Amino acid sequence: MASADGSKLWGGRFVGDTDPIMEKFNASIAYDKRMWDADIRGSKAYAKALEKAKLVTAEEKDNILHGMDQIHDEWAKGVFEVKPGDEDIHTANERRLKELIGEPAGKLHTGRSRNDQVVTDMRLWLRDAISILKGNALQLITTMVERAAVEIDVLFPGYTHMQRAQPIRWSHWILSHAVALSRDVEQLQEINRRVNVLPLGSGAIAGTPFNIDREMLRQELAFDDISINSMDATGQRDFIAEFLFWASLCLTHLSKMAEDLMLYSTKEFSFLTLSDAYSTGSSLMPQKKNADSLELIRSKAGRVFGREDKEAMFDCFDTVHAVLQVTTGVVSTLKINPSVMEAALSPDMLATDLAYYLVRKGVPFRDAHGISGKAVFLAESKSIPLNQLTVEDLRTASPLFSSDVSAVWDYSSSVEQYSAPGGTAKSSVAAQVEHMRTWLKKQVQ
Amino acid sequence: MASADGSKLWGGRFVGDTDPIMEKFNASIAYDKRMWDADIRGSKAYAKALEKAKLVTAEEKDNILHGMDQIHDEWAKGVFEVKPGDEDIHTANERRLKELIGEPAGKLHTGRSRNDQVVTDMRLWLRDAISILKGNALQLITTMVERAAVEIDVLFPGYTHMQRAQPIRWSHWILSHAVALSRDVEQLQEINRRVNVLPLGSGAIAGTPFNIDREMLRQELAFDDISINSMDATGQRDFIAEFLFWASLCLTHLSKMAEDLMLYSTKEFSFLTLSDAYSTGSSLMPQKKNADSLELIRSKAGRVFGREDKEAMFDCFDTVHAVLQVTTGVVSTLKINPSVMEAALSPDMLATDLAYYLVRKGVPFRDAHGISGKAVFLAESKSIPLNQLTVEDLRTASPLFSSDVSAVWDYSSSVEQYSAPGGTAKSSVAAQVEHMRTWLKKQVQ
Amino acid sequence: MASADGSKLWGGRFVGDTDPIMEKFNASIAYDKRMWDADIRGSKAYAKALEKAKLVTAEEKDNILHGMDQIHDEWAKGVFEVKPGDEDIHTANERRLKELIGEPAGKLHTGRSRNDQVVTDMRLWLRDAISILKGNALQLITTMVERAAVEIDVLFPGYTHMQRAQPIRWSHWILSHAVALSRDVEQLQEINRRVNVLPLGSGAIAGTPFNIDREMLRQELAFDDISINSMDATGQRDFIAEFLFWASLCLTHLSKMAEDLMLYSTKEFSFLTLSDAYSTGSSLMPQKKNADSLELIRSKAGRVFGREDKEAMFDCFDTVHAVLQVTTGVVSTLKINPSVMEAALSPDMLATDLAYYLVRKGVPFRDAHGISGKAVFLAESKSIPLNQLTVEDLRTASPLFSSDVSAVWDYSSSVEQYSAPGGTAKSSVAAQVEHMRTWLKKQVQ
Amino acid sequence: MASADGSKLWGGRFVGDTDPIMEKFNASIAYDKRMWDADIRGSKAYAKALEKAKLVTAEEKDNILHGMDQIHDEWAKGVFEVKPGDEDIHTANERRLKELIGEPAGKLHTGRSRNDQVVTDMRLWLRDAISILKGNALQLITTMVERAAVEIDVLFPGYTHMQRAQPIRWSHWILSHAVALSRDVEQLQEINRRVNVLPLGSGAIAGTPFNIDREMLRQELAFDDISINSMDATGQRDFIAEFLFWASLCLTHLSKMAEDLMLYSTKEFSFLTLSDAYSTGSSLMPQKKNADSLELIRSKAGRVFGREDKEAMFDCFDTVHAVLQVTTGVVSTLKINPSVMEAALSPDMLATDLAYYLVRKGVPFRDAHGISGKAVFLAESKSIPLNQLTVEDLRTASPLFSSDVSAVWDYSSSVEQYSAPGGTAKSSVAAQVEHMRTWLKKQVQ
Repeated sequence: MASADGSKLWGGRFVGDTDPIMEKFNASIAYDKRMWDADIRGSKAYAKALEKAKLVTAEEKDNILHGMDQIHDEWAKGVFEVKPGDEDIHTANERRLKELIGEPAGKLHTGRSRNDQVVTDMRLWLRDAISILKGNALQLITTMVERAAVEIDVLFPGYTHMQRAQPIRWSHWILSHAVALSRDVEQLQEINRRVNVLPLGSGAIAGTPFNIDREMLRQELAFDDISINSMDATGQRDFIAEFLFWASLCLTHLSKMAEDLMLYSTKEFSFLTLSDAYSTGSSLMPQKKNADSLELIRSKAGRVFGREDKEAMFDCFDTVHAVLQVTTGVVSTLKINPSVMEAALSPDMLATDLAYYLVRKGVPFRDAHGISGKAVFLAESKSIPLNQLTVEDLRTASPLFSSDVSAVWDYSSSVEQYSAPGGTAKSSVAAQVEHMRTWLKKQVQ
Repeated sequence: MASADGSKLWGGRFVGDTDPIMEKFNASIAYDKRMWDADIRGSKAYAKALEKAKLVTAEEKDNILHGMDQIHDEWAKGVFEVKPGDEDIHTANERRLKELIGEPAGKLHTGRSRNDQVVTDMRLWLRDAISILKGNALQLITTMVERAAVEIDVLFPGYTHMQRAQPIRWSHWILSHAVALSRDVEQLQEINRRVNVLPLGSGAIAGTPFNIDREMLRQELAFDDISINSMDATGQRDFIAEFLFWASLCLTHLSKMAEDLMLYSTKEFSFLTLSDAYSTGSSLMPQKKNADSLELIRSKAGRVFGREDKEAMFDCFDTVHAVLQVTTGVVSTLKINPSVMEAALSPDMLATDLAYYLVRKGVPFRDAHGISGKAVFLAESKSIPLNQLTVEDLRTASPLFSSDVSAVWDYSSSVEQYSAPGGTAKSSVAAQVEHMRTWLKKQVQ
Repeated sequence: MASADGSKLWGGRFVGDTDPIMEKFNASIAYDKRMWDADIRGSKAYAKALEKAKLVTAEEKDNILHGMDQIHDEWAKGVFEVKPGDEDIHTANERRLKELIGEPAGKLHTGRSRNDQVVTDMRLWLRDAISILKGNALQLITTMVERAAVEIDVLFPGYTHMQRAQPIRWSHWILSHAVALSRDVEQLQEINRRVNVLPLGSGAIAGTPFNIDREMLRQELAFDDISINSMDATGQRDFIAEFLFWASLCLTHLSKMAEDLMLYSTKEFSFLTLSDAYSTGSSLMPQKKNADSLELIRSKAGRVFGREDKEAMFDCFDTVHAVLQVTTGVVSTLKINPSVMEAALSPDMLATDLAYYLVRKGVPFRDAHGISGKAVFLAESKSIPLNQLTVEDLRTASPLFSSDVSAVWDYSSSVEQYSAPGGTAKSSVAAQVEHMRTWLKKQVQ
Repeated sequence: MASADGSKLWGGRFVGDTDPIMEKFNASIAYDKRMWDADIRGSKAYAKALEKAKLVTAEEKDNILHGMDQIHDEWAKGVFEVKPGDEDIHTANERRLKELIGEPAGKLHTGRSRNDQVVTDMRLWLRDAISILKGNALQLITTMVERAAVEIDVLFPGYTHMQRAQPIRWSHWILSHAVALSRDVEQLQEINRRVNVLPLGSGAIAGTPFNIDREMLRQELAFDDISINSMDATGQRDFIAEFLFWASLCLTHLSKMAEDLMLYSTKEFSFLTLSDAYSTGSSLMPQKKNADSLELIRSKAGRVFGREDKEAMFDCFDTVHAVLQVTTGVVSTLKINPSVMEAALSPDMLATDLAYYLVRKGVPFRDAHGISGKAVFLAESKSIPLNQLTVEDLRTASPLFSSDVSAVWDYSSSVEQYSAPGGTAKSSVAAQVEHMRTWLKKQVQ
């Protein structure tokens, strides 16, 4: 920091020089230039408030606005030139304004601290980012819901602990993930309400000593509310923390889905095939077709977005933005192999149904569970599928078995039992599709 | 696991023995017994649904309800005996029910998976826990707001980067923290809406195959809603993740406040004195009076509550529950030393006001900032306080200084300038107090 | 905290009462009583040093030693009674000593701060814990190495990105995990060198003002070294941080292995079967045999062990202690299905070998990779395995193919190519087994 | 990915196009180009091994080496042109090699997988990075040790829990931090032993099928050892995890030191003044001189460096590299204010000495602690410093006090008591300085 030319913001105070590593340490322009538009919008609104407070004249205000418009054009056209001393986007825009309009530029910071400006810009930027992510998420959910509607008749094994559990509809699996994403969208909207609060007019910590009309600023910048306490307004970054947490949770949802899809796309499962557009090869092994897209999606969960600063905010947005789009691409282009999926259903997955058969004949469930378990053990001992035990075999476990037990061994009938709300019966899954369609319509109103 | 007596839930299936370390690994009764009441409530409601679905008779249902009431009494009186095989609270209660009423106990799990039961119990328990924490937080906020109302006339230095920045009201500092906590309460209520959703009736993953009336269960257990998809309902723990994140954010707020208070209570600052009830001594140094309560509060932030499981949920509740109460105690009993606080105000903290003096005479703020900086440097060079520079001294920095500059050096006038909403002027702080009182009233309606 | 009876360590200083929540907040006896033996050893050594420094008489020292031996017996027999005021193990043992021997007990803390004592006890305890974990890890590695030796002839698919990559030996897979664990053992020993440093004699922060012979204490307690600076000695907990990180890395290794085993034990892969002793069933689905042990092992990775305190240290030890043993059990009892494993090898996994065939005929690898890729594509288009392409088919991709290409399609020959150190050829895997056996022998010397 | 021109590494396999977001998702050239030199070194060594294995001719090898040297020049001069398809540094260098020397470039990957190459490059790069960081750390430690030697006579308050505890030497404080950093250096060297292991020759997972001389590669690239198992070699990133953890611990040490320095540099403490080169001002408040360097150093602790990938490795290096240098700058340029520091010593900090006075007269320490506590309470009640209690006053607490108690109230004598190894007496601190100087000399041998 050179005191001679007063080019640094704290101008007249210092006599030493700043360690250049410190300068680099402090500089954020490399990433915060993304907020150029938010910064310009904030400064234009503040110029109007300064005029209303009679701290700049109408002419000065107009100069500032025109200068800012020109800076906007330069950024939009990609010709804005960042110079060595521009440590952040705010300094860069202010430096450029001074070049363009001279002295009135120096009035723009009257009563406005850097922190006040930074946090206003971050909130403006994040509000837009949230809107984009909401759009991405809704597009993905729509894709999933419509795919679920079309493929509602496909059955396959539902897994718990990676072991075959019960026959379910493929659409039931899709919707289980869509429902989680719909919660993410709702939470994102709640966060947005806390993002969309105007801090501007809070000064360093004490507030603004001038007659700055904060309500006018709020309207000008379309915030829902103004901050209550100036110290809290400039000091807190809770809205970033909330956004980062939201991203972690959303990425966890996408990751879990990707994990399942990776498994289903192995040679051994062969339930589905990814589009080439979402696969990559190996530089060594010519036959490899890796589900790299899924691996990337999966790997983003658990990613920690560091501390609550601007850099984390941008990184987080970019990640979720890309992951949501790639997931949409993957889900919309993958091909399922219904015959393999249904062939993977095995009679032992109906052992619960076998127990229910006994329950319907009055056996307490705990006992029925034990009897069915014995039948499973018997089939394993004989190395035959569960449904090939004879009625006599079954009677060694319980005398209540009779020939009508054969009705148990039908996968379609099995899934149709689960018709209570939320279940995997066709009617129930169709109702879930309708529920989600209605919800989606509400989101875009 | 011995197959002989079928005492394990998966009774007839296994022939080997379970590694005892595995048993211990799996057991959760040591901590999840805290959900005994939630588990009983859930089972009673489910028994009624089973009766409606004709899976138990009216008499069996009554037996179950009476048995459960007796188990409730045993827990409430502290006489319930946990036995070796009771791996979790659900197994323990079911085992006891069987001892008390015999066979109908075995029917209670008809169509209900362990996971279904666990997640229902967790939501019931957490709903109550959230209600308690909300009460704790409101009590703390009330304490803070009323203290701010009473001590509104005390001025002291506002700090940024641990350096004296601007004179502010002590109450302004208090309210900056109260406002953050009020956001926590609002967020907690949003989370509660996602907690308060009934999963029961989701089975393992496919749903329930019996005629279980989920809407009746919802009403019986006072949930707001029922889950949409059975796989999602039993598999997701998002509500725990949200609660853990909430706790981290809330603890961070309390930690920041404690960090300030620790600083203010050092010998060197001497702004305030903790009550003995919240201090501890040293086993070695007889004179020590440590702000242990503050150190503990501070240390809880950054605490990561592990993965989203029951254990984390309990640990998290206990921590926040204790920290909120201790903070309330600390804040309500600490004594401030207003004379020391005001004596810590120093003229250089009015350097911004000195710049504003020039702004009011038409100097652009950036220039005024530079001139004021020169004045600070001049005072430092002369080793005198800033307010003891003569008008002549000041004129070496700018000819616009005249004798009326003396009005700048008044701390009370300085803070009174910050009268815009959110500022530190008395009127503005009083408005914040009123705002918070109104908000508090709404919370308890 | 009552001042009257001076029963608290900071005796005469306070007049107020401590908030009971604070007391609970501060108390650690519930978990730190595990250090009872370390605490007694530390105090006995300190008593000897006090005698040497003439701060206690020989008789007083003997009284202290006898008292401590009696306390040792009480803990060992499980009859030591923790009383309400015993906030930690150190207070408990000191309180008991006073009951047993009266006044000389009060001399035991001369020049020794609580912090000094706590950190000495932690290092003593952790040193033993590390020794146990090293033993557990060596046992697991031995099991793995010997299993690799026995099953060296079994081939199966090596996977990358969950897709079949190249044929490898099953033992190669086992050893890849054993090698990672051997690094863990080496790192643990490095950590132990930093754990095994005596802090005792550091007082609160300034050191000890008495003639305490720290070298004698070091020998008495079998530490390798004494701490260099008293402030650092009492204030740092780096050795805990290192231990927690070590545990995370070790658990990650076990988790990755468990993840593979889970996959290999699915119905779809069927490469291996877990022993019943490491599986559990489902309370709802009678046929389920879940790889719960593997799921538990897998879930422990990524577990964050909180801040560097005693509680984290204990939790961490318990987790790794159990996981290592369960993993040993799982690995030693699982049954592999060699025929299924070898049947899972498919000709496309030899596409790299097909490229190498061309490389050996002088084709640059990048071109050979492209040609082999075309062959894979051709086979897929014809829906036939890669090895059923005719020489004519192959020649459409490159004229260099001739009838000797048939030699490529042999899995055993394929793996035998990889005979460089570290490869999957039998000789190479056997060399790895020998390397590990030699390494293991060195560890137990 | 276009199949037409075969420009992608997996050339002939694919027919679809890759989603451009996927491409961006996968590309790492933006940051991994930093490994350009390591990549060239690795490839040159591999070319030599290929020649020895007769997979390239001597002429081809020479062409490759010359081509690589030219690429080296281009990078070194900053004229290497990254092109659109260059997804990572390895692809970029290989693409350029092909442009320069044509076909033999395609042979360079014979038997070498991308993963094999990546992990070799990472280890080469990190080995250099570790060497730089070790140098930075030693420079900082040297600065600290020499400052401690010069300022050994300055006394000031030692703090625990931010409360004044005992008088200590300023140099004792410095050395407490230097000692922690010396452990970091030792740990870094241990990590380096695990970094410095050659993976090259591991292929994809099975090893190398050609006669690649791994021992020759090791010598060529100056690794200490070669990897034991090829799957482990290509799959593990433990060395990155270890490096990231090391960085966290080192940054925590620097952070703790910065936290103390921030406190000592507040107006209220005024123990020291930062150089202007390490301070920044405020854009709003002209008088502010913020300890921004310290705040930045402090803020880097707790930074989590994400998952174990290249990006985290680079980010981590940059952070520690900058922080170590800034800290060296801060520590070497700050000015201490010895008179303020000594004036901050207060008689109550000698309460422990008062207890020791009684211990030396035969009072058990616990009792002496209680009596001294009473004296503190008495002084507080009378609102006088502890050392102004009369002997009569003191005798109300214990009859053993006599006029020789006055010798207690000397800070210099007090610190001189702590002459055991590690203590704060001048002789002891001087011994620590010598110990560290000897240690430093060993590090640079």
